[in-house]
Amino acid sequence: MNGAEALVRTLLAGGVDTCFANPGTSEMHFVAALDRFPAMRCVLGLFEGVVTGAADGYARMADRPAATLLHLGPGLANGLANLHNARRAMMPMVNIVGDHATYHRVHDAPLASDVIGVATPFSHWVRMGESADTISADGAAAIAAALDPPGRIATLVLPADTAWTDPKDPTIHAVPTVAARPRVDAAKIEDAVRRIRAGGSSVGLMLNGAAMRAGPLALAGRIRAATGCRIFAPTSNGRTERGAGRFAVERVPYVVDMALETLKDVRTLILVGARAPVAFFAYPGKPSVVTPPDCEIVPLADLHEDLTGTLEALVDALGAGRTAPTLQSFAPPPMPGAYDPITPEGLAAAVAALLPEGAIVVDEGITGGRRFMPGTVAARPHDWLNLTGGAIGDGLPMAVGAAIARPDRPVVVLQADGSAMYTNQGLWTMAREGLNVTVVLLNNRSYATLVGELANVGAKNAGPTALGMFSLDRPAIDWCQMARSMGVEAVRPETMGDFARAFTEGTSGKGPLLIDVPI
Amino acid sequence: MNGAEALVRTLLAGGVDTCFANPGTSEMHFVAALDRFPAMRCVLGLFEGVVTGAADGYARMADRPAATLLHLGPGLANGLANLHNARRAMMPMVNIVGDHATYHRVHDAPLASDVIGVATPFSHWVRMGESADTISADGAAAIAAALDPPGRIATLVLPADTAWTDPKDPTIHAVPTVAARPRVDAAKIEDAVRRIRAGGSSVGLMLNGAAMRAGPLALAGRIRAATGCRIFAPTSNGRTERGAGRFAVERVPYVVDMALETLKDVRTLILVGARAPVAFFAYPGKPSVVTPPDCEIVPLADLHEDLTGTLEALVDALGAGRTAPTLQSFAPPPMPGAYDPITPEGLAAAVAALLPEGAIVVDEGITGGRRFMPGTVAARPHDWLNLTGGAIGDGLPMAVGAAIARPDRPVVVLQADGSAMYTNQGLWTMAREGLNVTVVLLNNRSYATLVGELANVGAKNAGPTALGMFSLDRPAIDWCQMARSMGVEAVRPETMGDFARAFTEGTSGKGPLLIDVPI
Repeated sequence: MNGAEALVRTLLAGGVDTCFANPGTSEMHFVAALDRFPAMRCVLGLFEGVVTGAADGYARMADRPAATLLHLGPGLANGLANLHNARRAMMPMVNIVGDHATYHRVHDAPLASDVIGVATPFSHWVRMGESADTISADGAAAIAAALDPPGRIATLVLPADTAWTDPKDPTIHAVPTVAARPRVDAAKIEDAVRRIRAGGSSVGLMLNGAAMRAGPLALAGRIRAATGCRIFAPTSNGRTERGAGRFAVERVPYVVDMALETLKDVRTLILVGARAPVAFFAYPGKPSVVTPPDCEIVPLADLHEDLTGTLEALVDALGAGRTAPTLQSFAPPPMPGAYDPITPEGLAAAVAALLPEGAIVVDEGITGGRRFMPGTVAARPHDWLNLTGGAIGDGLPMAVGAAIARPDRPVVVLQADGSAMYTNQGLWTMAREGLNVTVVLLNNRSYATLVGELANVGAKNAGPTALGMFSLDRPAIDWCQMARSMGVEAVRPETMGDFARAFTEGTSGKGPLLIDVPI
Repeated sequence: MNGAEALVRTLLAGGVDTCFANPGTSEMHFVAALDRFPAMRCVLGLFEGVVTGAADGYARMADRPAATLLHLGPGLANGLANLHNARRAMMPMVNIVGDHATYHRVHDAPLASDVIGVATPFSHWVRMGESADTISADGAAAIAAALDPPGRIATLVLPADTAWTDPKDPTIHAVPTVAARPRVDAAKIEDAVRRIRAGGSSVGLMLNGAAMRAGPLALAGRIRAATGCRIFAPTSNGRTERGAGRFAVERVPYVVDMALETLKDVRTLILVGARAPVAFFAYPGKPSVVTPPDCEIVPLADLHEDLTGTLEALVDALGAGRTAPTLQSFAPPPMPGAYDPITPEGLAAAVAALLPEGAIVVDEGITGGRRFMPGTVAARPHDWLNLTGGAIGDGLPMAVGAAIARPDRPVVVLQADGSAMYTNQGLWTMAREGLNVTVVLLNNRSYATLVGELANVGAKNAGPTALGMFSLDRPAIDWCQMARSMGVEAVRPETMGDFARAFTEGTSGKGPLLIDVPI
């Protein structure tokens, strides 16, 4: 058994049995070990952003980390943007990054770089696996670091000679016990209860992370029903259980003026696993903080603390246990007519009406996708995965990972065209693995969001050169050809009826389908 | 005039008039400024690896830096792999990375990250542009840093409020004088002369960087003609002027055993702008250093020193000025027959025979491309740009930049299929800009190099799972569809005659063409 095998066995023993990979020479022993450990599922991505984005999507739906396998500093660098998104979604991930043999470092060979330096800005935990003798312990520590609540990015560098050398001691290390999420102090609960009782609808609870599942959301719904306080969530969340039968939160809008309007009557905002809401970008003359100036921010439960327990404690102390929450009923907007032209409103209505129960929706719709989230609040129960870090190019990869994690559930990607280009290689992995993914490609042939942002930041007198930087129609990208070039079937509907048929076909479990929708 | 305009004016005043860009919200003022400064050519890439790779290719052919415009930490992260390649090619580059407004940082908004930390591993010079008042001086310093011999990566972070605020003082700073390349000490020249005279053919000169142009190469050829010493170059070079009329160096092969064989009789290796040759990767039981154990390494001129002056001094001291170098004659291998099937040998011969004078060849051929470099040594005079850092995905982007820098010259990309996938978005920019690029897509439907590397590293008993990680044929990628989806014409030749016609058509200056060649 060499170091690579010891690491694969450690990962499997630690419950990490899925590896998204784009390997190179320095990872060969890890790859070779895969044949001896069929329990480790290895999924190939043809670009590292697909690999890390898939691990993000996997963790969101599996509630446990996947491993990634990446090739030296530049390979890791290609995956960083989606590490950023996973970090903002508070997802666990174990990155294995191959590097030159330790004795080869001194030569500064062409592919050498400061791998630890590359990993650091987007990892919570980084370690160089210097020897085969310690690599199992290092691997177990990486898993423990990833599992540390609320979920962390752990990056373990695997030098080639660590991988190919046999460890002296073949012990496979178990993952150290991960501390449970700590409970919130009773005094803080009491303080929050007092504020909620006193403030009524001027109080908001801001939820995030683990609190966005159906169970804790229903607890929040009870608190609202009993006290009149409002329940908010940030603009972007890693995973929200929503639709019929779930309690629907108020989401803070992306647009600053809309966020200010949503929060204008809130005088006390109690944070349960969330941060105080701020503008995504700064704009001249607009505030960074979107709560009113006189709104008091009350941190109740931190990201890593026991959020469900906190809500349970609030319910108990408020006597809200007998108050039923108002849960969402199934009430999608009316379906558009079969011969109606395709419109953004029609698309949102059709997706809301047709979304199958248990669907996983990956939302990288950006400008073209803004209507879908409100439209689907009354759809059948489903999970919604937002782009959490704003680093575009997470949609197609996240869908790959979500579909690998939950092959029993249809995955729908609401995908902006501009963002899709960054990691279009994700389509190939969908085809290779026969994944149950329907890509609704929202094709506005532009970086439409930037046209709006140009005005928002007060950049005046934009002329044709500036506007040309946001246009993707010289040449237009043929997304049907793009998808087919990578083995994914594709259709371009002309009416809402065409779209509805394609969407129903796509979500029926016959492998990936891309629907190229002009908007 | 705001900070963004001051920066654009500073770049133009400093001779930086081409900007490869993938902007976002935080770069809007820079983009808006473009319409007021038409002298700044701005080229859009739909992924940041295209942007930085294009700046690499531009610098290689323009001998001056381009700017890049990137969006916060994750946007920069997507461009790092090709910064790595540019750094290894010793190319100058000025990266402008937008960031959140300085006062917004404290809020750790979703897209916030440690931009300086992201830039550091692959930049020689990094600065945060904290204020509009200093941004012109910062921009001038960035250009100076990039121009510092032999060529460096300079990264300037531009916070949004630095961009949108008007500087108090509208002075546009000139670029500080860049120190000339220092001359090599006469004693070192004398020492080298003594060694060359004494050692004859057991002495090698190892060239790189600026020494790989026709002029200094001819000087090296004189030294060889006069003394019998050998002239080497590393496996990968940023830019080599070669073909008919040029002096042909001996290139150190990538494969370790071949490198050892090439260098086995060398007892003294004198470095002129090069480093001592080492293996690209370490392999069990093989050396990292590919010169013989008893070979003495003599650093004569460092990367940043005056390499042409060094060779001139050697020529003078050796009395080689009257000895004509043996220059390469035009003698390509015979063209294959028109109805011959396509073979790697046939392709190499056809490219060698048909390559137009003055062509720029971008070589990311990897396994499928190994035959092209020897085959073209006797082609018409041309420039050859290697993948210098081993971070695959530089081929299509480099071709974009080279074609922008030299619109008068045809660009040919020898492009491996696996590597092409990383930055396939480069095809779109070729179509958008109507670039004179012919992509010879070497389609072996695999990561073929890794099949060989698996054996090289001694990873035994590879089974179907491991081998499946190197196969790109489930599904096969249809590169003609891929190219056409982004507006690039494409053909799939079936005979060598088909290939020859397509290659001639592609290099005739009618815009981009992809030739999907099965190998």
